[in-house]
Amino acid sequence: MKPTIGWIGLGNMGLPMAQNIIRAGYPLRVNNRTASKADPLVEEGAVLCSTPREVAQQSDIIVLMLSNNQAVEAVLHGEDGLLSGLDEQSIVVNMSTISPDEMIAAGQLLTGYKARFVEAPVSGSVKPAEDGQLVILAGGQAEAVEHCMPIFDVLGKQTLHFGEVGTGSRAKLVINLLLGITMQGISEALVLADKAGLDRELVLKMVGASAVHTPLLAGKTQSLLSGDFPAAFALKWMEKDLGYAVDLARKLEASLPLASAVTSTYTSAKANGRGEMDMASILLQIEELSGMKRKG
Amino acid sequence: MKPTIGWIGLGNMGLPMAQNIIRAGYPLRVNNRTASKADPLVEEGAVLCSTPREVAQQSDIIVLMLSNNQAVEAVLHGEDGLLSGLDEQSIVVNMSTISPDEMIAAGQLLTGYKARFVEAPVSGSVKPAEDGQLVILAGGQAEAVEHCMPIFDVLGKQTLHFGEVGTGSRAKLVINLLLGITMQGISEALVLADKAGLDRELVLKMVGASAVHTPLLAGKTQSLLSGDFPAAFALKWMEKDLGYAVDLARKLEASLPLASAVTSTYTSAKANGRGEMDMASILLQIEELSGMKRKG
Amino acid sequence: MKPTIGWIGLGNMGLPMAQNIIRAGYPLRVNNRTASKADPLVEEGAVLCSTPREVAQQSDIIVLMLSNNQAVEAVLHGEDGLLSGLDEQSIVVNMSTISPDEMIAAGQLLTGYKARFVEAPVSGSVKPAEDGQLVILAGGQAEAVEHCMPIFDVLGKQTLHFGEVGTGSRAKLVINLLLGITMQGISEALVLADKAGLDRELVLKMVGASAVHTPLLAGKTQSLLSGDFPAAFALKWMEKDLGYAVDLARKLEASLPLASAVTSTYTSAKANGRGEMDMASILLQIEELSGMKRKG
Amino acid sequence: MKPTIGWIGLGNMGLPMAQNIIRAGYPLRVNNRTASKADPLVEEGAVLCSTPREVAQQSDIIVLMLSNNQAVEAVLHGEDGLLSGLDEQSIVVNMSTISPDEMIAAGQLLTGYKARFVEAPVSGSVKPAEDGQLVILAGGQAEAVEHCMPIFDVLGKQTLHFGEVGTGSRAKLVINLLLGITMQGISEALVLADKAGLDRELVLKMVGASAVHTPLLAGKTQSLLSGDFPAAFALKWMEKDLGYAVDLARKLEASLPLASAVTSTYTSAKANGRGEMDMASILLQIEELSGMKRKG
Repeated sequence: MKPTIGWIGLGNMGLPMAQNIIRAGYPLRVNNRTASKADPLVEEGAVLCSTPREVAQQSDIIVLMLSNNQAVEAVLHGEDGLLSGLDEQSIVVNMSTISPDEMIAAGQLLTGYKARFVEAPVSGSVKPAEDGQLVILAGGQAEAVEHCMPIFDVLGKQTLHFGEVGTGSRAKLVINLLLGITMQGISEALVLADKAGLDRELVLKMVGASAVHTPLLAGKTQSLLSGDFPAAFALKWMEKDLGYAVDLARKLEASLPLASAVTSTYTSAKANGRGEMDMASILLQIEELSGMKRKG
Repeated sequence: MKPTIGWIGLGNMGLPMAQNIIRAGYPLRVNNRTASKADPLVEEGAVLCSTPREVAQQSDIIVLMLSNNQAVEAVLHGEDGLLSGLDEQSIVVNMSTISPDEMIAAGQLLTGYKARFVEAPVSGSVKPAEDGQLVILAGGQAEAVEHCMPIFDVLGKQTLHFGEVGTGSRAKLVINLLLGITMQGISEALVLADKAGLDRELVLKMVGASAVHTPLLAGKTQSLLSGDFPAAFALKWMEKDLGYAVDLARKLEASLPLASAVTSTYTSAKANGRGEMDMASILLQIEELSGMKRKG
Repeated sequence: MKPTIGWIGLGNMGLPMAQNIIRAGYPLRVNNRTASKADPLVEEGAVLCSTPREVAQQSDIIVLMLSNNQAVEAVLHGEDGLLSGLDEQSIVVNMSTISPDEMIAAGQLLTGYKARFVEAPVSGSVKPAEDGQLVILAGGQAEAVEHCMPIFDVLGKQTLHFGEVGTGSRAKLVINLLLGITMQGISEALVLADKAGLDRELVLKMVGASAVHTPLLAGKTQSLLSGDFPAAFALKWMEKDLGYAVDLARKLEASLPLASAVTSTYTSAKANGRGEMDMASILLQIEELSGMKRKG
Repeated sequence: MKPTIGWIGLGNMGLPMAQNIIRAGYPLRVNNRTASKADPLVEEGAVLCSTPREVAQQSDIIVLMLSNNQAVEAVLHGEDGLLSGLDEQSIVVNMSTISPDEMIAAGQLLTGYKARFVEAPVSGSVKPAEDGQLVILAGGQAEAVEHCMPIFDVLGKQTLHFGEVGTGSRAKLVINLLLGITMQGISEALVLADKAGLDRELVLKMVGASAVHTPLLAGKTQSLLSGDFPAAFALKWMEKDLGYAVDLARKLEASLPLASAVTSTYTSAKANGRGEMDMASILLQIEELSGMKRKG
């Protein structure tokens, strides 16, 4: 029989992920700060729980997909908190992107409650979440990760188990560092091209046919051409992750020139009011650095 | 009837490109500083000319695929030089990667000789050259570019015509800038991962499954794992192109933080004796910056 | 009558500072992890206390001059700790360089014990400490700072009161950021000059006669010429302070390109084994980046 | 008897320098594109020449103090140009700041006319020019430099002879690189301080009393407080020199992280319309990067 899955956090990532779980035939318990977000899941057969505690009591594996550590802590603690409902059979899977230190602290806390803990931040945004094509970056004891594999196989196309709790979060910083650099690299290339009088559409075709084509570019091309940047992955979150990455690098004595430079640029974009736009709006920052004025 | 093609420059890019031309049924005249490099082409039916002048006299379209502007100038000038053999019907196609200023100067020179001039540096290295899968970055008058299209279709999968002479070379700098940034970005991600205790093979899998996967990474994975960097695209050429790119940026008042930082790192790699290795050996530079010592 | 001063921390800064206090006629109680360091002071009339608690009990104003926050915490806590000996009349002056967050936390802790708290990190190293020519960067309530002014006047040539507790430590990060940038700026200028074939001694004369001459350069000239870098201010502490500065900058949404780049370079120097040398040895790092090999 | 001095170029540097020459008792011939600028000198006894050729014919030592190489070339060439008036006794002293390559080319040109050539760009701006307190950065043959020393002693407080023609111009780039870095370093320190809630006037006092105090800071304090940046040394010239410096660095395989970053920032300032303001207005660029809006 399939284990019952508890799901807390139904944002633009969490909701489609939970939908994939119920559609794969797993009994589902859900809880969300804004309960109405659970409506589509309830329609498909999920049971709405009024508290994290209830989710814990009724589920075998409890998944957290929350926006930051503050939200994680709010779910864990308190009278109706998750911790109060756990038992020794529980496995808590934290798929939220929080810092490695926060993840390790969460793991130690849970272990104190005898529950097993797996970290599983993901690589991929809304579209791969909908398509079950995420990449799961797992950290935790092999046995516990093994238990979660059927779930991970529903959510993603690949699960990579990096080691103990904390390694998955560090891997997430590594991939987001490369994401931030690539996005700014594309932007600098486009600005140089603009200044050199090259047609942007042709330039994007050139990149698209080159050795540095990325799925990222394919996904952002529309925004790069139109100048509209609705947030798939908000710039402020990228800036936060870059901050974690350079902190980690410094502590580990890694000297990374592009990481330093890119973080400074994203911070500037945030300071100039672009935090809520998509991370691809770093293009606007590079345009501004270069004195280019957008019409309208 | 197919036009006769003249080909000057049979390096590791030029030779397979010329082979594709003759295999596509074009009469071919070839000339190279080291004549023996033409042997495989002569076997397939090409005619070896002893001077660039002869190539010019016997061909409709003359292609130059040389390593730098010094080589281009050596071919053009002198008693037996290309210029002395041109007539008003000649089209000269310069596929060498030289700076935009050098390319424009070459174009102006040729025009003085009544010949038509097309620039056509390429995006892609040896493998795409062999497979006829290059991307042609063309600049020049539309009519002249049109004349060359059948040839370009043999050599590449796509031809992008950016505008007048100089635009193709600028586009080439744009794509190489992005190439240099991406390669260093990958290297910084790998070094951060190493320092964080993550398995490099797993990390490469993660990147390979992510939104920032690139054909570049696929091509360099073996080198990144083994630490051997046989040159497909020598680091010193990348450093030179990055130098041209930041120069161009400054002149055009584009302020590009990553372009500046990346150029400084490639210059450091060159100053530390890595110029002849593949550009992917920038990884070794980042490792050294971070105090990591390679065994052996 | 002059208040009794308690002094904890007799490193290469603390000892000459305490000597200035006793020579100015203040009764002095001292404590240090390695008690023998107090010998020269005892000879001049200071009373050695066996615990921080004793110092607190016998002094009106207690000065901490310790190397990091770990040392500060070790002094504060425990059975014989400073906290256990404080009363409502006590003023604790923390002159150690610790992070603004640590400083604020120390202040809040002390306030809980009813004692008054003043932060007073200093600008200046060993020579100004000996000469009573430090600059005191004070933070805390005006009344408490006022009480300490006679002491500050003995130790320094100027006291700047920036505001509440935390502001002095932030000011210290600001000045050290500029110090780190200036030192690396000098190093880059020297390396460019070397590569350009200019005599280093002449170049140092040029800088010394220019608008960018600094006392810093005067103090480091001997090291820059000889390549010997005995630590006056160890590179690892500079790297730590730069780390705090860029962290603070990011949190406050300040985007500082040089601060980012300089931190990355100092981290590299530390990763390559230069942490214990003077911060001026950043020159060696720049030389290495540029492929210059020192003889011997 | 004192040699007759010819002076071409009466900008805001050239005029006070020429005044010091005539006041030191040297016969003076002057020429300037805008002849009326010579009026104050003529009043003091200088003779106005209508062409550079005339200056050359009537002078022993001819000084050029022009704004860029274009102006230098305009003076040298043509029917009435300087070259046409030289003889074997002439010494031409180029005190203009032009690139090392341009300086070397000028030297080779002059040598072809049998005249002796000395380069002598200066360190210092308007005030030191008025006070005869410049630092002269000389390059050329020892004998020729020796001949000019009495003149240099009038204009400056110190003459540094770096070697052959080109070395003086390279030394000038070295000092201006450090100037650019220091000015941006100060600006970043001030922006961090502002964001941290520190009073700017107090912060400037702190820097002024520290090991990184510079005459530069003293000279710019008023601007940094008021936000008015009348050009003593226009930002666009600093940007140009930084461009030359990073070019030179790359050619010589010097990898200079701060030099790269600072150049990118000055280019951005220029692209955003600050080229005509003083170089200290780089502060405004850092403020803008950090989202700070100036009132008014």
